[in-house]
Amino acid sequence: MPDPYLKQYLMTAGPTPLPPAVSQVMAEPMLYHRAPAFIDVHARVLESLKRVFQTSGEVLLFAASGTGAMESAVANLVRPGEPVLVASCGKFGERWAELCDAYGGATVHYEAGWGNRVEPADLDRELTEHETAKVVFTSFSETSTGVVHDVKALAEVAHRHGALLAVDAVSGIGAVPLPQDEWGADVVVAGSQKALMSPPGLAFASPNRAALEHAGAGGGARYYFDWRRTLDGQRKDPPDSPFTPAVGLVMALDVALRLIEEEGLDAVYERHRLLGRATREAAKALELELFGPEDENANVVTAIKLPEAIDGGKVPKLMRDRYGITIAGGQGKLKGKIARIAHCGYFGAFDIVVTISAFEMTLRELGHEVELGTGVAAAQRVFLEAGVQVASPA
Amino acid sequence: MPDPYLKQYLMTAGPTPLPPAVSQVMAEPMLYHRAPAFIDVHARVLESLKRVFQTSGEVLLFAASGTGAMESAVANLVRPGEPVLVASCGKFGERWAELCDAYGGATVHYEAGWGNRVEPADLDRELTEHETAKVVFTSFSETSTGVVHDVKALAEVAHRHGALLAVDAVSGIGAVPLPQDEWGADVVVAGSQKALMSPPGLAFASPNRAALEHAGAGGGARYYFDWRRTLDGQRKDPPDSPFTPAVGLVMALDVALRLIEEEGLDAVYERHRLLGRATREAAKALELELFGPEDENANVVTAIKLPEAIDGGKVPKLMRDRYGITIAGGQGKLKGKIARIAHCGYFGAFDIVVTISAFEMTLRELGHEVELGTGVAAAQRVFLEAGVQVASPA
Repeated sequence: MPDPYLKQYLMTAGPTPLPPAVSQVMAEPMLYHRAPAFIDVHARVLESLKRVFQTSGEVLLFAASGTGAMESAVANLVRPGEPVLVASCGKFGERWAELCDAYGGATVHYEAGWGNRVEPADLDRELTEHETAKVVFTSFSETSTGVVHDVKALAEVAHRHGALLAVDAVSGIGAVPLPQDEWGADVVVAGSQKALMSPPGLAFASPNRAALEHAGAGGGARYYFDWRRTLDGQRKDPPDSPFTPAVGLVMALDVALRLIEEEGLDAVYERHRLLGRATREAAKALELELFGPEDENANVVTAIKLPEAIDGGKVPKLMRDRYGITIAGGQGKLKGKIARIAHCGYFGAFDIVVTISAFEMTLRELGHEVELGTGVAAAQRVFLEAGVQVASPA
Repeated sequence: MPDPYLKQYLMTAGPTPLPPAVSQVMAEPMLYHRAPAFIDVHARVLESLKRVFQTSGEVLLFAASGTGAMESAVANLVRPGEPVLVASCGKFGERWAELCDAYGGATVHYEAGWGNRVEPADLDRELTEHETAKVVFTSFSETSTGVVHDVKALAEVAHRHGALLAVDAVSGIGAVPLPQDEWGADVVVAGSQKALMSPPGLAFASPNRAALEHAGAGGGARYYFDWRRTLDGQRKDPPDSPFTPAVGLVMALDVALRLIEEEGLDAVYERHRLLGRATREAAKALELELFGPEDENANVVTAIKLPEAIDGGKVPKLMRDRYGITIAGGQGKLKGKIARIAHCGYFGAFDIVVTISAFEMTLRELGHEVELGTGVAAAQRVFLEAGVQVASPA
């Protein structure tokens, strides 16, 4: 029997905590997906997604993990044997390359290195060297390191070379601005379980006209993730889904999107900006290095280098078992080397205060000398100086 | 504002109603998928699925609609250009052919006709004519017509011809016996949202050793639905998932599977047998014809031919709008011709009584003379004679 007073704080970049209204709607009776009550929910969600993605195109809704939406982009855009460029800087960027390989693409994989950014100049150089590549796959927010890319600049470079840009925004959408149409991203893929404050199990892809045209001309074998099939369903009046939608998850997303729109997208981004800044300032006050470039836009997850003298792998475990706070450690080659504190979605100021507080106590327990309260105070200062209430959205 | 006293009865074959305990667990706080609390749930679900599928092999768990699991079978088993046989008798069987075509198979499609069964002799003839087909795709319960196939006999025929048998049991698993290992089905695919009493969004595929070997030797492009990738994750200790699992849905399935195992598989099948028989007897007492062969095993959904003199398309709409009872009409070529009353999952005796009662009233309103209570009485007799309590499982 777990201790009920060891209150649980979920500080991972997906799944993220759910606002109570989102959790509770899933306890409502199940709806038939062709009944008017669900048709209304479905139509409302599809319209709201377009506003959150800031696109006039259709945001295609799949019952899948975020990787399913990535796969939809690859299956629809990659023609076997044709060159494609993947520009990665971490685990999820590398997944694009695995997907392109699985679909028979002649994959050129530019690896900027974990913790680095793919810079527009890098992309320009790669596309100059590989001028036959007509699709570029990259990440918006690379969850494994916290790095956030300048998608606007990357899209400009890709287009200058006559290539399409597909962006994995699974952890970034709804946390950091990514106005798809304005910036010209040709496809944005995302998932429900991060800044969109919903349970995992829904995935999104928003191909623009150019991406749909490219997909229509070829691509690999696909059925469930075929864009055209889902697009044709969603464009009906009322919108339909070619497969039984994940009704309960769509009901949850409906509530979450309403919360996001009530808060206002700009306010949502501002809240994430403060959460990110507070976490970075706390780390610096504790004289710990940030992993990756310090970036005012890197507000999805903050990666902090752990002191080399301690056993870094113990940090997440100790924080969880002793303090009830679930953060993530490093993945792959960063195992034991970094702590990742997420703040994308249903997070307020005091989630950061609590987490930094437990982080300080954990570092002390593992033998690293920190002055208790130093990081907390730095976070407090950020919130206080902002003079705004960083409240929970629900 | 809908009338709160127009109580809602969901009588469709997916999504089906959820037991309260299943609904409510989704209102619990979200869990991190790598935290011990979720790892326990995940491991328990995987073990329970094996018992429900009656297989010693791994039941692979995907975040997807049921069609995603069907696609996994096609993507893993169909090699472009190689002949495969689809044996269908309705909408979902036809989906197998669409999938095989999408993956470049040389698809031979035997269509038994909507409402007919694929008989073992049909399969024998087809495999004799097309002896190079090494994989057969068919349905267990064809949801569009209510027909249930003799999978044991079909598997024997397939194996005699050296072919594998993949079975879509999306709506049948957990309602009608399908002991995978004993009957020799090489893959069973299923979904969460029918007799497994969970929300839509989880899909399952249970390839046996022969199916895994065939998949390992080739198949089409795949990543998300690649069996090996998910199998390798699930075989770890503790089991892992290659992609963020649909945590809330897995928590729901965990509760639903516990209810099923507490009731006992045999009792679950017996309950469905009574629900199916009561519905068929009610239809016959109303002097309506059943669509498809009368079959003691067709206990997933009962398809009833509607009187030709009435506008059949109005039946589901009237039942829903006036009485709050959601049944399905015919799909595709059966639109307006049949009513489909589902009873797979969280259904008890009085769900049938209520539905038949509203069905009688609806037929009368549409101008078809029925003696009120006749169908209801026939259903009551079945339940009474069985001498067992057909209770809700929760």
